[in-house]
Amino acid sequence: MSEEAKDTRRVMEAIEECDSAKFLKAADALHYADLAEIFEGLNDDKREFFSAHIDKEKFADVITDLPDTLVEETMGRLDTDEQREILDQVSDDDRVDILQDVSDDARERLLELVEPDDIEVTKSLLKYGEHTAGGRMTTHFGSIRAEMTIKEALRSLREYSDETESFSRVYVVDAKERLCGYVRFRDLAFNTWETKISSVQREVKRSILASADQEEAAQMVSKYDLFVLPVVDEQNRILGIITHDDVVEILEEESTEDMEKMAGFSGEISEETYLNTPTMTHFKRRFPWLFGLAVLAIASGIVMIKFEHVLESLFILSLFLPMVVAAGGNTGGQASTMVIRAMALGELDEGTLWRVAWKELRLGLMLGSLLGIGMAIITLFIVPMFYHEMPPAIGFTKFAAAVAISLGVQITSSTLVGSLLPIGARAAKIDPAVVAAPAITTIVDVSGMVIYFFVAKAILGL
Amino acid sequence: MSEEAKDTRRVMEAIEECDSAKFLKAADALHYADLAEIFEGLNDDKREFFSAHIDKEKFADVITDLPDTLVEETMGRLDTDEQREILDQVSDDDRVDILQDVSDDARERLLELVEPDDIEVTKSLLKYGEHTAGGRMTTHFGSIRAEMTIKEALRSLREYSDETESFSRVYVVDAKERLCGYVRFRDLAFNTWETKISSVQREVKRSILASADQEEAAQMVSKYDLFVLPVVDEQNRILGIITHDDVVEILEEESTEDMEKMAGFSGEISEETYLNTPTMTHFKRRFPWLFGLAVLAIASGIVMIKFEHVLESLFILSLFLPMVVAAGGNTGGQASTMVIRAMALGELDEGTLWRVAWKELRLGLMLGSLLGIGMAIITLFIVPMFYHEMPPAIGFTKFAAAVAISLGVQITSSTLVGSLLPIGARAAKIDPAVVAAPAITTIVDVSGMVIYFFVAKAILGL
Repeated sequence: MSEEAKDTRRVMEAIEECDSAKFLKAADALHYADLAEIFEGLNDDKREFFSAHIDKEKFADVITDLPDTLVEETMGRLDTDEQREILDQVSDDDRVDILQDVSDDARERLLELVEPDDIEVTKSLLKYGEHTAGGRMTTHFGSIRAEMTIKEALRSLREYSDETESFSRVYVVDAKERLCGYVRFRDLAFNTWETKISSVQREVKRSILASADQEEAAQMVSKYDLFVLPVVDEQNRILGIITHDDVVEILEEESTEDMEKMAGFSGEISEETYLNTPTMTHFKRRFPWLFGLAVLAIASGIVMIKFEHVLESLFILSLFLPMVVAAGGNTGGQASTMVIRAMALGELDEGTLWRVAWKELRLGLMLGSLLGIGMAIITLFIVPMFYHEMPPAIGFTKFAAAVAISLGVQITSSTLVGSLLPIGARAAKIDPAVVAAPAITTIVDVSGMVIYFFVAKAILGL
Repeated sequence: MSEEAKDTRRVMEAIEECDSAKFLKAADALHYADLAEIFEGLNDDKREFFSAHIDKEKFADVITDLPDTLVEETMGRLDTDEQREILDQVSDDDRVDILQDVSDDARERLLELVEPDDIEVTKSLLKYGEHTAGGRMTTHFGSIRAEMTIKEALRSLREYSDETESFSRVYVVDAKERLCGYVRFRDLAFNTWETKISSVQREVKRSILASADQEEAAQMVSKYDLFVLPVVDEQNRILGIITHDDVVEILEEESTEDMEKMAGFSGEISEETYLNTPTMTHFKRRFPWLFGLAVLAIASGIVMIKFEHVLESLFILSLFLPMVVAAGGNTGGQASTMVIRAMALGELDEGTLWRVAWKELRLGLMLGSLLGIGMAIITLFIVPMFYHEMPPAIGFTKFAAAVAISLGVQITSSTLVGSLLPIGARAAKIDPAVVAAPAITTIVDVSGMVIYFFVAKAILGL
């Protein structure tokens, strides 16, 4: 059993026994991320005990690690003095996160508790949307001036040492706070104290506007292997930094969001773990999609009714009907997954649209032909072993041809639909992940029915 | 147009015009990540020009950024001296990546070109699998001894300053290289030179075994917001570090892999961009799944044949057949996506299996009931407006009941299947993402047909 598992068990026991001394000691040994997980899993009474007895400095960290939906409730358990202490303990960006997570009323009340020293930066950070670079950045970075010596720079940095998140990059600014360059901390340590900052300073190649989407920031950090990404305003004044842990969080959020949308959800970013999300929340997020897709699926039923005479005059056609329909859904789903993921990783833009379509068209033709041939072989050699009622006027050869041709057409068209719909969605400013797998499956189900019956009717003369 | 876009265009023009001076100058302005993207998009002749004329130091970085499948071919374009230069330029972990990406023959040949100074560390790193912590780590970290003063420590670190990736954490080791603690670089800069390392040293709370899976390392860094994760052997000797950029890469690879498996791919980690992956590679990765799912889908056809008499005696049943089947596929797919993502984020373990099943069972019942009621209303009030041939012995009420009940059963069972199959797969040591959406859809398609016909037969007395 790992140390964490043991400490976790101790904390759980202490809560169970309402033993506050044991709880404090065990909680002290645990990382706030583990404590946040424990807190999430507790019921109301136990959360009450947890928040009443935990060290408030530690609780501040725990709260910043809680899912958005729990923040308001948790802050509400505390009295005004405790709330003030929490807001004072956390870093600027975490404080803003807390304020963004609560209702408008609560935000106004909590804002009044923020220390006068912090109120200005808090209000200015609140302007940025939660999912923008500005909303994600921390304002705790090291900044110095080009005309300083290393000795002066170190003295100035030392004052902020306790609260600065990362000194991997120290930014050089001019009198108007505009970003002029950076130094690595080691450049300060490995040069003489009299050296001018201007002589060790390096060029900042990449920065991002505070109003930019968080995904853009994460893609930039990921592509260029950046340590830290400075966030600037339109005048190139440095406002904050995006650090590696922000990027990791953004990437996980965005991947989860994409996956959920691809499976057909309403697709809001959810920070709560699966088990801690109330069943009702799951229900609300999944139902509207299911209902919409179910209504759409009735279209397939209408097609079946319309082609009743075809099916009734040769019922063995139903042997391959679900297969032709499903193959389209599967190829369409694969194609859309590839394209949506490529877009999320920043690989595709509108200019490459035709290359994607051309590639998927060829791929669809290849997949459709080979699968069609495979199914034709099954129809010619295996089906006759079990089915002896084929009318001689039709025969297995024609039947195999109908199956193969409809399968080929269905797969080729579904692959094209699966790859082009996400691109079209993005061009229409709709999130591409929304039109993914389930929506595409439902659409190509209908077209698959039509293609199958139509081809069968034409080739078999029904 | 951004600076990068302009430089990219200049590089492309220079390659087109075979103008080596222009190419060198334009390439020099670009980041190696951009150059790697350009290189990937070139045809053979142009890659030849690119590798012949680019500055070899820059080319070393470009090669480390190429997808695995391109590395061998690209190294093969160079003569022995150039290969030696590349292997000398790159960092230890990048060199090992190159060697892991090429065939056994090429690896042996390239290993002979590695400088004597580097050969030992290269061979020892090659022992670790490509997707383990050891295979990912870099060996360029700063390490010092507890008995040193800060002055001695800084002098010792300065020697390795050029090649060390990150000084955010400097590790304190004993005479046997065992990990005893760490200092932050700022602790060295902000204390007097005579201070002993032992008095500023902090405890290392988390490290990872070199043999551990890369995903575990990424989850640890992500959960605990670590800057750097030290990699150790069984004797707790520090071997290397995992840095933030490794984690970002791991997370992107693993998310892409999961998404592709969920869409039904053979699911190897692919580093190539969508457009640069040859159509044949896409084909090979997608075809086996499609074929397997198509064969499985014939089972649905067999069910239709078996229930031919039910469908023929009341053909209006086909109006809701595709809908009942598809609703199961959609709920099953949603459930499996939720569970697979929760497992990938480390939220679920075997102990929580029953909580997941219980939650999905309730959710399935809720979704199934509401959707069943919705469809019953459509059956009762809308269908009679268009369909006038309902046999009086059956009537729309019974028909609506059959639709609602089969839909409820289908959705509840599909939700359970979708959530339990990934958990079962993991217990059986199969990657859960493999059994996802398409496989589940195909399975519940068959059960949906059976449920629908069976319920219809029983309630309507067909």
